[in-house]
Amino acid sequence: MEQNESPKLIDKTLSNLRRAWAGLVGAAKLKGTSNIQPALPEDDLERVRRQIEDCLEGRGGEVSGRARVADLGQTYLILNAQGRKAFLELLAHRYGVDNEALARAVADWSRAYQGLQEGNSDWQLPLHEAETAMRDTLTPPRVRLLAQFNTLPQGVKFLVDMRADLLALFHARDPVMKGFDEDFKRLLASWFDVGFLELRCITWDAPASLLEKLARYEAVHAIKSWNDIKNRLAPDRRCYAFFHPQMPDEPLIYIWVALVRGMADNVQALLDVKAPTDNPAEADAAIFYSISNAQKGLASISFGNSLIKRVVADLAKDFKKIRIYATLSPIPGFCRWLVEQIAEQGDDLLLPGELRSLSTLAPDLTGVKALSSLLEQKSWYKKPPVEEAMRAPLLRLCARYLTQAKRGKYALDRVAHFHLSNGARMERINWLGDTSTKGMRESFGMMINYLYKMAEIESNHEGYRGAGKIKISSSLEALLKI
Amino acid sequence: MEQNESPKLIDKTLSNLRRAWAGLVGAAKLKGTSNIQPALPEDDLERVRRQIEDCLEGRGGEVSGRARVADLGQTYLILNAQGRKAFLELLAHRYGVDNEALARAVADWSRAYQGLQEGNSDWQLPLHEAETAMRDTLTPPRVRLLAQFNTLPQGVKFLVDMRADLLALFHARDPVMKGFDEDFKRLLASWFDVGFLELRCITWDAPASLLEKLARYEAVHAIKSWNDIKNRLAPDRRCYAFFHPQMPDEPLIYIWVALVRGMADNVQALLDVKAPTDNPAEADAAIFYSISNAQKGLASISFGNSLIKRVVADLAKDFKKIRIYATLSPIPGFCRWLVEQIAEQGDDLLLPGELRSLSTLAPDLTGVKALSSLLEQKSWYKKPPVEEAMRAPLLRLCARYLTQAKRGKYALDRVAHFHLSNGARMERINWLGDTSTKGMRESFGMMINYLYKMAEIESNHEGYRGAGKIKISSSLEALLKI
Amino acid sequence: MEQNESPKLIDKTLSNLRRAWAGLVGAAKLKGTSNIQPALPEDDLERVRRQIEDCLEGRGGEVSGRARVADLGQTYLILNAQGRKAFLELLAHRYGVDNEALARAVADWSRAYQGLQEGNSDWQLPLHEAETAMRDTLTPPRVRLLAQFNTLPQGVKFLVDMRADLLALFHARDPVMKGFDEDFKRLLASWFDVGFLELRCITWDAPASLLEKLARYEAVHAIKSWNDIKNRLAPDRRCYAFFHPQMPDEPLIYIWVALVRGMADNVQALLDVKAPTDNPAEADAAIFYSISNAQKGLASISFGNSLIKRVVADLAKDFKKIRIYATLSPIPGFCRWLVEQIAEQGDDLLLPGELRSLSTLAPDLTGVKALSSLLEQKSWYKKPPVEEAMRAPLLRLCARYLTQAKRGKYALDRVAHFHLSNGARMERINWLGDTSTKGMRESFGMMINYLYKMAEIESNHEGYRGAGKIKISSSLEALLKI
Amino acid sequence: MEQNESPKLIDKTLSNLRRAWAGLVGAAKLKGTSNIQPALPEDDLERVRRQIEDCLEGRGGEVSGRARVADLGQTYLILNAQGRKAFLELLAHRYGVDNEALARAVADWSRAYQGLQEGNSDWQLPLHEAETAMRDTLTPPRVRLLAQFNTLPQGVKFLVDMRADLLALFHARDPVMKGFDEDFKRLLASWFDVGFLELRCITWDAPASLLEKLARYEAVHAIKSWNDIKNRLAPDRRCYAFFHPQMPDEPLIYIWVALVRGMADNVQALLDVKAPTDNPAEADAAIFYSISNAQKGLASISFGNSLIKRVVADLAKDFKKIRIYATLSPIPGFCRWLVEQIAEQGDDLLLPGELRSLSTLAPDLTGVKALSSLLEQKSWYKKPPVEEAMRAPLLRLCARYLTQAKRGKYALDRVAHFHLSNGARMERINWLGDTSTKGMRESFGMMINYLYKMAEIESNHEGYRGAGKIKISSSLEALLKI
Repeated sequence: MEQNESPKLIDKTLSNLRRAWAGLVGAAKLKGTSNIQPALPEDDLERVRRQIEDCLEGRGGEVSGRARVADLGQTYLILNAQGRKAFLELLAHRYGVDNEALARAVADWSRAYQGLQEGNSDWQLPLHEAETAMRDTLTPPRVRLLAQFNTLPQGVKFLVDMRADLLALFHARDPVMKGFDEDFKRLLASWFDVGFLELRCITWDAPASLLEKLARYEAVHAIKSWNDIKNRLAPDRRCYAFFHPQMPDEPLIYIWVALVRGMADNVQALLDVKAPTDNPAEADAAIFYSISNAQKGLASISFGNSLIKRVVADLAKDFKKIRIYATLSPIPGFCRWLVEQIAEQGDDLLLPGELRSLSTLAPDLTGVKALSSLLEQKSWYKKPPVEEAMRAPLLRLCARYLTQAKRGKYALDRVAHFHLSNGARMERINWLGDTSTKGMRESFGMMINYLYKMAEIESNHEGYRGAGKIKISSSLEALLKI
Repeated sequence: MEQNESPKLIDKTLSNLRRAWAGLVGAAKLKGTSNIQPALPEDDLERVRRQIEDCLEGRGGEVSGRARVADLGQTYLILNAQGRKAFLELLAHRYGVDNEALARAVADWSRAYQGLQEGNSDWQLPLHEAETAMRDTLTPPRVRLLAQFNTLPQGVKFLVDMRADLLALFHARDPVMKGFDEDFKRLLASWFDVGFLELRCITWDAPASLLEKLARYEAVHAIKSWNDIKNRLAPDRRCYAFFHPQMPDEPLIYIWVALVRGMADNVQALLDVKAPTDNPAEADAAIFYSISNAQKGLASISFGNSLIKRVVADLAKDFKKIRIYATLSPIPGFCRWLVEQIAEQGDDLLLPGELRSLSTLAPDLTGVKALSSLLEQKSWYKKPPVEEAMRAPLLRLCARYLTQAKRGKYALDRVAHFHLSNGARMERINWLGDTSTKGMRESFGMMINYLYKMAEIESNHEGYRGAGKIKISSSLEALLKI
Repeated sequence: MEQNESPKLIDKTLSNLRRAWAGLVGAAKLKGTSNIQPALPEDDLERVRRQIEDCLEGRGGEVSGRARVADLGQTYLILNAQGRKAFLELLAHRYGVDNEALARAVADWSRAYQGLQEGNSDWQLPLHEAETAMRDTLTPPRVRLLAQFNTLPQGVKFLVDMRADLLALFHARDPVMKGFDEDFKRLLASWFDVGFLELRCITWDAPASLLEKLARYEAVHAIKSWNDIKNRLAPDRRCYAFFHPQMPDEPLIYIWVALVRGMADNVQALLDVKAPTDNPAEADAAIFYSISNAQKGLASISFGNSLIKRVVADLAKDFKKIRIYATLSPIPGFCRWLVEQIAEQGDDLLLPGELRSLSTLAPDLTGVKALSSLLEQKSWYKKPPVEEAMRAPLLRLCARYLTQAKRGKYALDRVAHFHLSNGARMERINWLGDTSTKGMRESFGMMINYLYKMAEIESNHEGYRGAGKIKISSSLEALLKI
Repeated sequence: MEQNESPKLIDKTLSNLRRAWAGLVGAAKLKGTSNIQPALPEDDLERVRRQIEDCLEGRGGEVSGRARVADLGQTYLILNAQGRKAFLELLAHRYGVDNEALARAVADWSRAYQGLQEGNSDWQLPLHEAETAMRDTLTPPRVRLLAQFNTLPQGVKFLVDMRADLLALFHARDPVMKGFDEDFKRLLASWFDVGFLELRCITWDAPASLLEKLARYEAVHAIKSWNDIKNRLAPDRRCYAFFHPQMPDEPLIYIWVALVRGMADNVQALLDVKAPTDNPAEADAAIFYSISNAQKGLASISFGNSLIKRVVADLAKDFKKIRIYATLSPIPGFCRWLVEQIAEQGDDLLLPGELRSLSTLAPDLTGVKALSSLLEQKSWYKKPPVEEAMRAPLLRLCARYLTQAKRGKYALDRVAHFHLSNGARMERINWLGDTSTKGMRESFGMMINYLYKMAEIESNHEGYRGAGKIKISSSLEALLKI
């Protein structure tokens, strides 16, 4: 770097931060660093470009290479959103696949392939070389650059967070950024292969810092307090998570299990901090009542399937009396679907008997209008006559939603799709199984148990994956026959 | 056990609990066990007596011996307070030193000693045998019984908790129970020798269950929330604790340290969860602002001295810039002492100038009456004139209290006594250093820094321990000369 | 220390070694330190005396106290045998129980006891105080000094080794040194209480340094090579050891187990490095074929009993098919006993049939003379006719030796005594079970299986401990009836 | 599988081995399994083909998929060399890149690229899709199959060993197998990225099983005994190794270091088990005297560069006095080169003075003939006049070999090439630095120190990598100027 040019913002910042790299990634910020977030003006962008090329050319062997990558990472970390956007765009646009080079490799390959087709085996080697050239070209510089970060302490977490930025800062339909994200995802997917993950059972003896993360990332039933966490880790509860060896303090995905007697039908009861703790050795059912992804930067890299299977295996080893492995799951799309159905079908949606019950409760309104109006009342479910009248039509319609509303050949409801893909079956819809605000808003308080029956998982999985066939219990069948 | 006698309460309980031993010690109680707490009626007491004798006689080798001890421990654990009192009394009264046997050994020894004095070396062996007999007799059966518990999982914790019961259930002056407690303490002290303890630095990555205990046992500045704990474990804070290998999840004693610039003078500032985190590498002072014992059952077995010394050594290794090792300590006995002084000395306690200032603030009252009246006002310290008038006399009197109020030759204030015994010196009284309710109630908000200066620790310690000499700073000297 | 006095040998040595403390205890010696081993002349002894008194008086608080103890320990470590002898004699003679003080306490106690006997309860407190004084006096300064070493790194190992020196350097009948050793043993026994020990299963993945120790300390069947160790740790073999938390790298006692089919009858077969490895899951017998104490300094502090019981429990957990827990043990005292019997009883020792067989083999000699002569031949057991003729008389006499040769009411054979005390029974004498030089020399190649049968361990133990009753199998009974 | 067909060899074997999977990989073989090694006849090959397709189609979800992969792995493990060859050929030939599909993707891409070149942005999406299709096609089924093994316990080690088989069983020039190996290597290289590796310092406290592997894999100076290993791990020696988290018991590459005073010039002296141990704190030089790859299956995936750099960093942290980081390396190609030079250049190779000296020693022969003849004498180096006469010419010629013998622009000697690529410089040739049979055979006993000087590593590396420039010391320069 020339000594006579006026030092830029990033330089000054970096000279202070060089040693703080590890502390910066995912850690509590120290006083005074949080505000230094330049927006990466044009001059600095040029400087970043030079840093990137130095990294790509690998000048000076490993040690200085590593220092250079660390510098580049620090540059990224101190940027604000605008600066990061510029940084990522630079990577995406300038360091993608070199189409001219690819065109040459493609032409070479086509020529050799043609030659071979004509029976000339001299083209064997050129074909192989062209194939290698294509493959190399298809791993663009931006991927090679990203891969260098894994030599840094916490470098993998850095990349996961960078991909989270990428997903947050750009529109999913921007074709160049989408291509970059596909590259990014492919790299992370190869590192986060499920074979490399470690399953841990998390207890109240786990690090407080880890439990804090579980609370922060919980996506299904919000954690309200430390008391709430402690209760979810009581002797009759379990939490399991996947970890990656390079991110030992960061859960990737985690699942909460209640060990109870009988298939649970109400999540508020499960989460009640005042309920007594049961003896887990007496449980005959393991209820999975929440599963959450913890890393936004690993979006669409799937672990949930493996997680459930491995947790079942672990529980089966420890608890000989458990006969039932089932979820207690939300039905996130039911309300939205029902609103659409009401708009489309009107009163045809309801059976004569249902129409009659409704008319007695809401004398001014009839049919689906009465239905809508009643459901808009606050705490309608606490009023026995209303609750009574809602029960039959909503259960019936929910069963229809779950089994007949489709996206292509698969279930429309994303939670249903997840568990059906895993080989579970739909076992029971639970009336007022979740009366939280969220539960009422999503599914008028209904929840569903998906049952994991070892003997049928494989055939359920094949049936659903192939033909979209949904396995249901006789109780759901009965609801559908009404 | 005879099969035809009607089963007693304890038997029924035990048959359920036999396998649950480990789970019972110090662990969350399972549903349904907490209420089974018999009061140990006479019949059961007799049964307990038989259990004890079986243990003492060691029938049936180690394995069955261990089972028998576990049974006895379970018996104890399910008792309520009344039952435990009876159990401990039984141990104390029936299984203490056998004075008749001791009298015989003493007589034998005296005879042999006499013989030796008269020059007959044939008495050498009888003397040695009598000495051994005395020593054996002086280790009473109750001690041998207690020692057997250490073979059980969590047996050491069981004993520590049993001694806590002993201290809580009996009056300190009951001579038999006091003798039992001395035996008990001697046994625990030999196991909890400071050489066997492990020093651990506790961070936000420590088990949540451990942090929960730190919060529960905190004796100086109450911990209000998980946010509060997290703040006390920020990068510029430290917590150290001693652990015993047989109780790896139970802190014995712990100390909180703030790494700051300059000698801290206000504990609310140190504990402010909203204050920014400083870079610990820049700190020049380590401030010990709280030290708490966690195990009531280890009362009067001292570790605090060693803890501070080892923490200083550990910090000195990691933080080269630290020059000051000091406490920010409460002055728990000042208010009580001042009330007594006021009663004894009246206005003689105050200097003429102080009397004058007070008279301007409280026209109706004079002298110490004015002082008392003003100090009784809520939040007097927030009213500038009152605060101003209080400052000089209270600082002056506090310096007198700390240095001149004595119990024997030592400082009356127990915190002062602790640090002076360790070789610290009194460095600075901090006006309004702790304006919490407790701080105002104990010492009108004043706190004190005890300074640990490596070069003088040894001489301070010798001077204080020998002649009760208190090393003070020039600022305290100035206060005393007024 | 006066600066003008000429530095003594120890001073010079210490100034070099002060920092090397930890490295000196039980570790490989660095070049140049091994020869500095003064013999502790008079001047230096006086200096050691001053060091000891400084330690006992605890001057200067914990940190400098610890340094002082470390100095004293280093002094000891650099001494040669003569120097160590002088050091230990100093401790034993000068820092034992203060008999004058004890005489005073004894007199006080007697007076108070007398007073109490006469019904005057005012003597209660004086009695208690005298008891405390007696107890304190009975813990002599040398014990308090030794206890201080446990604050040093590896201090416990240092003490264990010091006691090994004590046992090696002095005659067991020296009364003062014996008293010192009893003190020493009592201190170590309280620290090495079996409840504090950790059982570890040792595999070929254990530290090489640990396996090296197992080989060095092996007392029963010498380990010849690393191949030999590896074979003893094959998948169908186990090794278990007890460790103390303060000596995590030092085994205290360890036992070797073979998992085989059927009760093993030959130790050479078990130790054959060329034999194939069996599938341990198919084993129905666990054979304990060697147990060794590793620490000479823990002599007569017993762990073996607990070790076998806990190993059985551990194996029972992992191997469901094991039905037989038995030893394959040497009979160390048989030959010696037989020689004595021959001298005493002559030909009466042999049955008529036995006499006849012998006469055919050794025409020149008759009776026990023939027996002795034949047994003196090298490799007699490889000559079929000799082996054949020896078999019946030796098995018969060995059964007599094991069951009828006594020391007091207990078995004379020390291995027999150990296992019988543990509750085992004598199951089977194995002809030519150990044809090593040692095996032939000790017991003419015979070995014995002691069987641990869970259901009878307790009654066997009680029967043996109480009345010296030895439980034997029907096959031994048959041998005794001949 | 049809139940009526007669079971094949593999089936029978598998039914026994299914549960033994983990035990089979890299572990000691149990009795009776080693001989079951079928050669994979045609029928079985067809069965294997079906297993592979089931794995690739991922039928039945994760759990059964994993079982299927385990089965396939077991099939492979029980095969003999001929069977494994057939298995690998099947994978290589049938599951490589699908050239027809690739041709289609290539055509699609070319069309879209053409369209874009002509300015029609509608081709953007088709281009992206074709790119993805190409990339997918370029990851052939055999790679996807191999990747599935990482979900098995020890699956990564299984793959590493499978690649070792691949390299051993096939000729490097077989084009299909070479293509397969490139795929294989690419997969392993992505998993064994140096960022995922863990550096461990190995001591005498390391597992015996690990030390056994170090001895077995040692490639430079053979390890003769456990004593030899222990000596190489003495306090003044270090061993460092890289490990992968999925193969925690398997070193990947390791390096031995001697901490000495001055740059070592003789490897026998370094390895002498009788030499005293030096105090490592006094060392001023760290000598790397051996570096070995442990996993044949990771051939040409390079870690050595990183290893040296990270070891230097670790040593620099612990040993403040070390000033010299250098190797003591063999010169494996010198003798071979010299023989060629002699054949090519004859006596021109020698200087007049050298010719004269030789003539005095071997009167019958002259020039290089005399040289060759003398060097063929056993232990010539122990005869002072011969050794004297050889010294000058061999040192001079060795310097020429090291600096002037090239393969392309790089050093011909592979050890030289390795260290020069890392940025080291040639420092000193050591006469008779390795007089072992191997040392004499490779380089007439000469060794060389490569010096790692931090300040010049980067420029040396750039100079060598770019222009093949070799940095040498003045002593080597002097040798070259003769």
